[in-house]
Amino acid sequence: MAVYTEVSQGELTEFLKTYSVGDAVSFKGIAEGVENSNYLLQTTKAHYILTLYEKRTRAEDLPFFLGLMNHLAEHQISCPVPIPNKKNEVLGELSGRPTALISFLEGVSVNRPKPEHCGELGKAMARMHLAGLDYSQSRDNAFSCDGWQELFLSIQKNSEFMDGLNTEVERDLGEIAENWPDTLPRGIIHADLFPDNVFFLDDKISGLIDFYFACTDMLAYDIAICLNAWCFEQDHSFNITKARSLLREYTAVRPLERGEFDALPLLARGAAMRFLLTRLYDYQHTPKDALVMPKDPTEYIKKLRFHRGVTSTREYGLD
Amino acid sequence: MAVYTEVSQGELTEFLKTYSVGDAVSFKGIAEGVENSNYLLQTTKAHYILTLYEKRTRAEDLPFFLGLMNHLAEHQISCPVPIPNKKNEVLGELSGRPTALISFLEGVSVNRPKPEHCGELGKAMARMHLAGLDYSQSRDNAFSCDGWQELFLSIQKNSEFMDGLNTEVERDLGEIAENWPDTLPRGIIHADLFPDNVFFLDDKISGLIDFYFACTDMLAYDIAICLNAWCFEQDHSFNITKARSLLREYTAVRPLERGEFDALPLLARGAAMRFLLTRLYDYQHTPKDALVMPKDPTEYIKKLRFHRGVTSTREYGLD
Repeated sequence: MAVYTEVSQGELTEFLKTYSVGDAVSFKGIAEGVENSNYLLQTTKAHYILTLYEKRTRAEDLPFFLGLMNHLAEHQISCPVPIPNKKNEVLGELSGRPTALISFLEGVSVNRPKPEHCGELGKAMARMHLAGLDYSQSRDNAFSCDGWQELFLSIQKNSEFMDGLNTEVERDLGEIAENWPDTLPRGIIHADLFPDNVFFLDDKISGLIDFYFACTDMLAYDIAICLNAWCFEQDHSFNITKARSLLREYTAVRPLERGEFDALPLLARGAAMRFLLTRLYDYQHTPKDALVMPKDPTEYIKKLRFHRGVTSTREYGLD
Repeated sequence: MAVYTEVSQGELTEFLKTYSVGDAVSFKGIAEGVENSNYLLQTTKAHYILTLYEKRTRAEDLPFFLGLMNHLAEHQISCPVPIPNKKNEVLGELSGRPTALISFLEGVSVNRPKPEHCGELGKAMARMHLAGLDYSQSRDNAFSCDGWQELFLSIQKNSEFMDGLNTEVERDLGEIAENWPDTLPRGIIHADLFPDNVFFLDDKISGLIDFYFACTDMLAYDIAICLNAWCFEQDHSFNITKARSLLREYTAVRPLERGEFDALPLLARGAAMRFLLTRLYDYQHTPKDALVMPKDPTEYIKKLRFHRGVTSTREYGLD
């Protein structure tokens, strides 16, 4: 939620000379995305997002991300696409950072999704999964089950967030790793499809954004992430109506295989673990008086416990 | 440079129902202004800025600021204006904060102004000063000469920013206070007309923004602030060509009285002191690891020393 790299009007003018998008009439740093610096740029021709990739986004991954956005858009998935410059390249440099000019997408994210929003999400995610199947590039999931143990060890060295949490996490990690599936259908997943990253207009999805965690992994794991991110209430209770809506609309577009269906509780538990661990990490590494507060890890402890108690995907509302 | 108060889509929708500006099609927190939370809102009708006033802006001052923007706009000064809601009020509440919906102004601020930009600024400032003369409200300058001694004492208690600086400031403060003029023409000044707050399109000013330091004070003091903010190079050397351009264009619209002309070096020294003190204060009160770095006070130490050595307004390029 912050602009990290400042861009001067002079630098912007020089950068825009390499594009055919007109001249700047407005240019504002926006609080979108936590990893990169984003500006909303209005030119004499249109609106754009200017993204400067900061250190946490690896430059060698950018062709995968930008190519994916193009691929999905070509397959009728509404998402931002990089604008080519006069040399027909989508990556330039600005203020010493790799930079892309991205198309602007209308829409507003919902912070408290209703069941209809979850249904819309399910449908859009399934369509995105299908569209990604013939994408030529692949990228390992940097936050996959394989890496959780190591991430946990680095967290464990510091003080405990909550009494007994380390023991609880350790036991869960073992159980999840032991049972983690390896034969389910794989493809391109968004891997961070939180409500922030889904735009709506009149309660219909207008687009998906922020593909900078996208990677190759089990498609059902993307669903599991969304069960965590979309189907709990503010009091951390699980809303089965939302989950049913999400799963029904998803499976109407891309039916789940038996194995995917059965694995959902474990995948959801894994997804809760992934966000619990990164939140604990951020919590430990963000200064107490920083302007941007780290997200509360407690939320994901409760979600982890919920999924641990789920014995059948039926408890997510799907028959 | 930060969004402090988050606004949810639900809260925004409720808020917009009290206005006749259409429905939201895009809503993004922007990094504009350091005191308040600002969002760029695109509706089915137009673009707007939504401002939530944070604690450092006193609620009782808001009618002065919002009324001033309206007054100036009615007098052909291009600036944002508050949009009235259906009850014809310009102040509402959102997320527990006083909130105003403000018209959107095109333009981009220049970080390295050229002499032509300084001339444009001089002309626009003079026109603003004239337009403000018959504004019915007034507001004391909270950062005027009267308060500098007290501000300095609160800074002095903490460690010294630079060897010998406290002694230097103390001596200057005495000299400035002793000679501070009290009979020069007064009116509404912007009091924070830094390059950030001036928008250009094709090197012509498209508007002035951020009136939340505006107050009643000597008009020439506003010029003095701008000599500091616009006429020094990055190496802190004074650019007399820029100052001449600023002063020439200003005086072509509103000629300076003899007393104003003669007082400029002292007023510029006072303006440098004001920004030095608040920067020292912010420097002491911002945690070392905060995301938003306080501005470097060194710049204003050098500016203060420069103006201390000026014996005649001729050194600012004005004959």
